[in-house]
Amino acid sequence: MRKILVIGSGKSTSYLIKHLLDKSTQEELHIIVGDINIGNAKKLIGDHENANAITLDVFDKSSRQAAIENADIVVSMLPARFHLEVAKDCVAFGKNMVTASYVSEDMQKLNKVVTDKGLVFMNEIGVDPGIDHMSAIKVIDNIRDKGGKIVLFESFTGGLVAPESDNNLWNYKFTWNPRNVVVAGQGSAAKFLQENTYKYIPYNRLFRRTEFLEIDGYGRFEAYANRDSLKYQSIYGLDTIKTLYRGTIRRVGFSRAWNMFVQLGMTDDSYTIDDSENMSYRDFVNSFLPYSPTDSVELKFRHALKVDQDDIVWDKLEEVDIFNKTKMVELRKATPAQILQKILMDSWTLEEDDKDMIVMYHKFGYELNGEMHQIDSTMVAIGEDQTYTAMAKTVGLPLAIATLAILNEEITTPGVQIPISKEVYKPILKELEEFGIKFTEKEVPYLGYNPLNV
Amino acid sequence: MRKILVIGSGKSTSYLIKHLLDKSTQEELHIIVGDINIGNAKKLIGDHENANAITLDVFDKSSRQAAIENADIVVSMLPARFHLEVAKDCVAFGKNMVTASYVSEDMQKLNKVVTDKGLVFMNEIGVDPGIDHMSAIKVIDNIRDKGGKIVLFESFTGGLVAPESDNNLWNYKFTWNPRNVVVAGQGSAAKFLQENTYKYIPYNRLFRRTEFLEIDGYGRFEAYANRDSLKYQSIYGLDTIKTLYRGTIRRVGFSRAWNMFVQLGMTDDSYTIDDSENMSYRDFVNSFLPYSPTDSVELKFRHALKVDQDDIVWDKLEEVDIFNKTKMVELRKATPAQILQKILMDSWTLEEDDKDMIVMYHKFGYELNGEMHQIDSTMVAIGEDQTYTAMAKTVGLPLAIATLAILNEEITTPGVQIPISKEVYKPILKELEEFGIKFTEKEVPYLGYNPLNV
Repeated sequence: MRKILVIGSGKSTSYLIKHLLDKSTQEELHIIVGDINIGNAKKLIGDHENANAITLDVFDKSSRQAAIENADIVVSMLPARFHLEVAKDCVAFGKNMVTASYVSEDMQKLNKVVTDKGLVFMNEIGVDPGIDHMSAIKVIDNIRDKGGKIVLFESFTGGLVAPESDNNLWNYKFTWNPRNVVVAGQGSAAKFLQENTYKYIPYNRLFRRTEFLEIDGYGRFEAYANRDSLKYQSIYGLDTIKTLYRGTIRRVGFSRAWNMFVQLGMTDDSYTIDDSENMSYRDFVNSFLPYSPTDSVELKFRHALKVDQDDIVWDKLEEVDIFNKTKMVELRKATPAQILQKILMDSWTLEEDDKDMIVMYHKFGYELNGEMHQIDSTMVAIGEDQTYTAMAKTVGLPLAIATLAILNEEITTPGVQIPISKEVYKPILKELEEFGIKFTEKEVPYLGYNPLNV
Repeated sequence: MRKILVIGSGKSTSYLIKHLLDKSTQEELHIIVGDINIGNAKKLIGDHENANAITLDVFDKSSRQAAIENADIVVSMLPARFHLEVAKDCVAFGKNMVTASYVSEDMQKLNKVVTDKGLVFMNEIGVDPGIDHMSAIKVIDNIRDKGGKIVLFESFTGGLVAPESDNNLWNYKFTWNPRNVVVAGQGSAAKFLQENTYKYIPYNRLFRRTEFLEIDGYGRFEAYANRDSLKYQSIYGLDTIKTLYRGTIRRVGFSRAWNMFVQLGMTDDSYTIDDSENMSYRDFVNSFLPYSPTDSVELKFRHALKVDQDDIVWDKLEEVDIFNKTKMVELRKATPAQILQKILMDSWTLEEDDKDMIVMYHKFGYELNGEMHQIDSTMVAIGEDQTYTAMAKTVGLPLAIATLAILNEEITTPGVQIPISKEVYKPILKELEEFGIKFTEKEVPYLGYNPLNV
């Protein structure tokens, strides 16, 4: 039996462990799931004969090293900041390693020793980052192979609620870390490239500069810009590209409504609100509006943000009950973002039967033989339930498949890497299709930015 | 002769030194002005027999200590972060000290040893902070002395261009550090108290929530909220006050126009713009607007900010020439704020004959014998020229007067302090009146927030 050590058994590990267990007899695998709290690990492996759960405190050097030494390959599902100690042990004991996390500077620094030892440290092989890399680079490589020159690449990902569970006015529920949703886009301006020009969008305009996307069978979406669209420009070999944009997908109308929270300052995470524990939701909203002895919070809100009487955004606000006088914030010394998160979790938490959905959309514009072309590539994955979510599936399956491919020496090129080589993405994308994670690529007219040639 | 050491001879020292020189014969003073670069010091003292300039590097311990030991009192006009070494030497050699800067935590920590040694370390005795403290506390003390209870205190200060030099559409020129003007209000939300409720205004709404102020003979002004209106709440003894607001004064219309820069992200100081050195002013503006092969930067700007064709804000934009194609930014790796500052300095730098103006406005609402009252207190100071500015006058005169009062043992209460005791503010405010720095106090109807009792 080959031993696979999975460290961490949080939300995103269900499919990873399921897939490894499903393959365990045929592939002669024994799966060891280590977590500081083994309750979820035990639940995920059940009474499967090819698996066991162990208590593993990643800060306890001796037990961590013993577990790593005992394994043939290590999958770290820990938060990204905890990977490094695991990685160093993997180097020391000569074990390959797989993570779904962004390559940190410290991880990158291990590249030389990892390469010298002939080890494979595969990172960013979940979803955003992960499937997005593989599906994009596949099309980019195809275009290059036939002699095309990429001039435009736009890539969008969103974690949403599945259509069958989409029953609120925002067409949104929290399917992942709610905090990341509330503070999304804060900090320095979103930066991207548009027709060879750097463009910047400050936070307070981010949710008003969205664009629409349409996916056959799923209707319309919208997307707002990510903070840094240029992160993978060089890694993807796109140094001379004219337009490079990465965005986050929401259902149409979400951003315009969300922008109300942004404008009033309700998403701010940089200071705490006085006496927040004794505030009602209504008091919280009122703290961002001028005092009046007579006018309602509602009218002050409408006036401040110029919301017309018949504007649908108003119904969205009422739906999340932010004007409620009796619901209390309760949190002590909370930031506006923390309070808003609490309010929204009342409304946007998945119900037991709800399913989530991952949506991805890539656009590739290229020049070939003097003519302009465009390929759009889309993927929609829908979860099964709240354990086997689309998020867990799109994170866990590529991780599991890559882990087996490395174990079986189908992926052998050593080094600290992300899945952008053919050796890696080809077999993984192919196998993902068997699980319904399939990209639909189609040729569309290249519109660019001057379709009418005016 | 008593020796006064003034460390630093920057912009704000002209009046300080002038006043000390004017008093030097009568008061038997010798003024030593120390600066690392003595050019300006020499210019300010001229060939006055009671003064000399010395080269003083505040980081050179031995020469610094020699100069301090040799003095009877020390005025530090250094940037606030450099006061501490001077302060420690003043403690060691038993010298009194005066600054116009905010009391830092480190400075506050010296309070015990300063008090034990019977020394007076007077801080925040320029303008904002300084004259604002004294003029406000004077009225607050008067109200309290007659048994009134303060329920509202609003305090506004502005550094503006004098009416006779006010010849642009913004009614504004840089009369002090331009950088502080460009980044004003950034960071966490502005916080204040309004009728017993904490209120928060995020940066992106700050310049749209202004209020108007009227000063007899000077017309209308507007004010936006300072970041922390509550800083002096306890120090002023206003812990039970209902409304506490501090703001910055501009001429009417400035804020609405400035808000365009804020909305587009042109005041951001948190990241640098790529290739900024090769940008024209127009390119800079365009980097915050979507790409278009056909539409003008002007129309994109109007569309993004919904600027009507006949809106006066447009003329303000054109006046500062931000759409110029040939004027180059030139700055390397500059933040948006740095670039905007450069653009505005082309238009808003004082001309040789221009004069500046300091405007201050306090409102005090109080209850006395069951009735509500209000006192408004205003002050306008106008500069003489670009050396003897209103800013230098309002900073330097109270500093100089306080320095003499301490030297003459009229101010004796020891400790690290700010000018909020009667012993300090009474004689200083009185003497300031001789120099035209005079507050006009008048009883006005208390309007509060429900004047119509609806």
